[in-house]
Amino acid sequence: MVNSWYFLFSANLLHEYKFLVPAAGRDTLNMATLNEATNDFKSAFLKVYSVLKSELLQDPAFDFTDDSRQWVERMLDYNVPGGKLNRGVSVIDSYRLLKDGKELTEDENFHACTLGWCIEWLQAYFLVLDDIMDNSHTRRGQPCWFRMPKVGMIAVNDGIVLRNHIPRILKRHFRERPYYVDLLDLFNEVEFQTSSGQMIDLITTIEGEKDLSRYTLPLHHRIVRYKTSYYSFYLPVACALLMSGENLDNHVDVKNILIEMGTYFQVQDDYLDCFGDPGVIGKIGTDIEDFKCSWLVVKAVELSNEEQKKLLYENYGKADPVCVGKVKALYKDLDLQGAFAEYESSSHEKLLSSIEAHPSKSVQLVLKSFLGKIYKRQK
Amino acid sequence: MVNSWYFLFSANLLHEYKFLVPAAGRDTLNMATLNEATNDFKSAFLKVYSVLKSELLQDPAFDFTDDSRQWVERMLDYNVPGGKLNRGVSVIDSYRLLKDGKELTEDENFHACTLGWCIEWLQAYFLVLDDIMDNSHTRRGQPCWFRMPKVGMIAVNDGIVLRNHIPRILKRHFRERPYYVDLLDLFNEVEFQTSSGQMIDLITTIEGEKDLSRYTLPLHHRIVRYKTSYYSFYLPVACALLMSGENLDNHVDVKNILIEMGTYFQVQDDYLDCFGDPGVIGKIGTDIEDFKCSWLVVKAVELSNEEQKKLLYENYGKADPVCVGKVKALYKDLDLQGAFAEYESSSHEKLLSSIEAHPSKSVQLVLKSFLGKIYKRQK
Repeated sequence: MVNSWYFLFSANLLHEYKFLVPAAGRDTLNMATLNEATNDFKSAFLKVYSVLKSELLQDPAFDFTDDSRQWVERMLDYNVPGGKLNRGVSVIDSYRLLKDGKELTEDENFHACTLGWCIEWLQAYFLVLDDIMDNSHTRRGQPCWFRMPKVGMIAVNDGIVLRNHIPRILKRHFRERPYYVDLLDLFNEVEFQTSSGQMIDLITTIEGEKDLSRYTLPLHHRIVRYKTSYYSFYLPVACALLMSGENLDNHVDVKNILIEMGTYFQVQDDYLDCFGDPGVIGKIGTDIEDFKCSWLVVKAVELSNEEQKKLLYENYGKADPVCVGKVKALYKDLDLQGAFAEYESSSHEKLLSSIEAHPSKSVQLVLKSFLGKIYKRQK
Repeated sequence: MVNSWYFLFSANLLHEYKFLVPAAGRDTLNMATLNEATNDFKSAFLKVYSVLKSELLQDPAFDFTDDSRQWVERMLDYNVPGGKLNRGVSVIDSYRLLKDGKELTEDENFHACTLGWCIEWLQAYFLVLDDIMDNSHTRRGQPCWFRMPKVGMIAVNDGIVLRNHIPRILKRHFRERPYYVDLLDLFNEVEFQTSSGQMIDLITTIEGEKDLSRYTLPLHHRIVRYKTSYYSFYLPVACALLMSGENLDNHVDVKNILIEMGTYFQVQDDYLDCFGDPGVIGKIGTDIEDFKCSWLVVKAVELSNEEQKKLLYENYGKADPVCVGKVKALYKDLDLQGAFAEYESSSHEKLLSSIEAHPSKSVQLVLKSFLGKIYKRQK
């Protein structure tokens, strides 16, 4: 267990304030303090990672050799803690809001962080395997794990090991809690949905069957819902609800709002892939080259006349920069930037009114905090 | 649910008799009847597969497209039911023996078969991913799934989908049973152990670090124990014990015996890879070429003098048939066939006396039935 949670309490409250107070209302001095607080919070969250990692490296259910213990440690350090940690941190944020902002006990904090890390482990598992399937080169600014010397296809099993760590962590820290079985069911269901979403995404883009006419808004929404929203948006809040003693069956409305929010998030992602600043988003988008079922291409098919449709069919999904340029020019002709701005504001409005219709003020706060984190994001 | 279990009851009892009565005691006519009974039993077991498959293809937790439903169905039919089904069938065999041979109710039979299929799903998941990692060509007499047209690296996700079906099946059929959480824990722990065993196996054979001096009996046992024994030997019996209302914590001795039996089974496998009849075992062994940590090479290192060791180091793990021939000749010089015969009989004797020390007669029957299935097997 981590020795002192003092920094975690204070830093985390400030961290959240940063998202709840609109940018215009923050002065420069405050922002400096807040950034520092966020860093303190992250370092406290990372301490829990170290605890969980050492427990896993001593797991009595497996008799490690020195080599295998070192392998797992290196694999974890490379793949688990290096992301933005937003999903993990959301568990703690949400749990505190559900407790009406009351200070968490050391135990509550540790357990909320632990569930947050389980989501980060889940994310690491997906990313390690996704990178193999997409034949990607870099991830989080470093080579993909499977491209590291000596790793190669062992990465498939490493993904599986990452996945298997989650029930090990849950069993160690939650076995005696009344909601343990619900936690297992939750992680199982969300993982099933994510892999099913990944499946429709993969079979839609099979080489030799490239057919833009299949790219419709319902398909796009279905892929996004299953592949991203459940584990990135619903799962953190569902973990916090279980910790608060809630029955998830009574929160289908919360689930639906979070799934909608996830869709909105992914549409932004699709938009930024083409129209975002690569310097800000940290990568150069390749959705056009990769024949991705992006919100932009779905919208473009919908808005195109016959001639424009022909251009799209001929140039989408090709690596040639000339083709990519033609698609981008068409997006501009069709004013997809305007269509996106319209989508963004109407989506935000709808989400806000769904949130405000919720009977619980603290649940409203959780959902608004989430929405605040992503509304009009540039990266 | 399957309509009539009549055939299943009778056929399965005969099926088991086949393993309990030594070959010498069976006459030709009986064997014909028994083989027919076994086929009836398999076809009843396969009916449960169809039920589980249709449930999965209608799972309300995922909104299938026609394409994705077809994909899953084809993937399941290709990978799940085509094996020997020994692991799955063992659940039903063991459960009946634990019930002192009493006829099972329709419900008991269906649930035992369902758990049997969960183990077959687990096996399918491991095989789909193992074949990718090992870059294999064929499996069960057909091309590996990832080598099928249009599949390729989508097979990684298909493996994950197979894995995710297990908790879906368990939730649908066992959620209300008192041992549901123990079933989840059991499958989670066994999967963790299998992936950990796979990891030591993989990192031991990393190219460029081939070093025979690391191949010792303790390493061999550790790989086998974790990679094979838990899921192939312990898991089926543990499922049957849970269904019988037993607490697995009270059966550590049963676990240990089954783990030992798994080791014995794998040593046979290693032996047959080199000395078995390819026409009977259905494949041509390549352990020598693949630098596998086989019981034979471990034993060879142990028994070799300096000169023989040098020969082994120079020729083990090479695809060249001349090198393979030299290794095989050395194995004969060292009389590994004799060493194996000795291992087989002492191992069998040890297992039998451990089994006979067990207080419960029905547990003894379960374990003896298992041992009977593998003792002196030729394939």
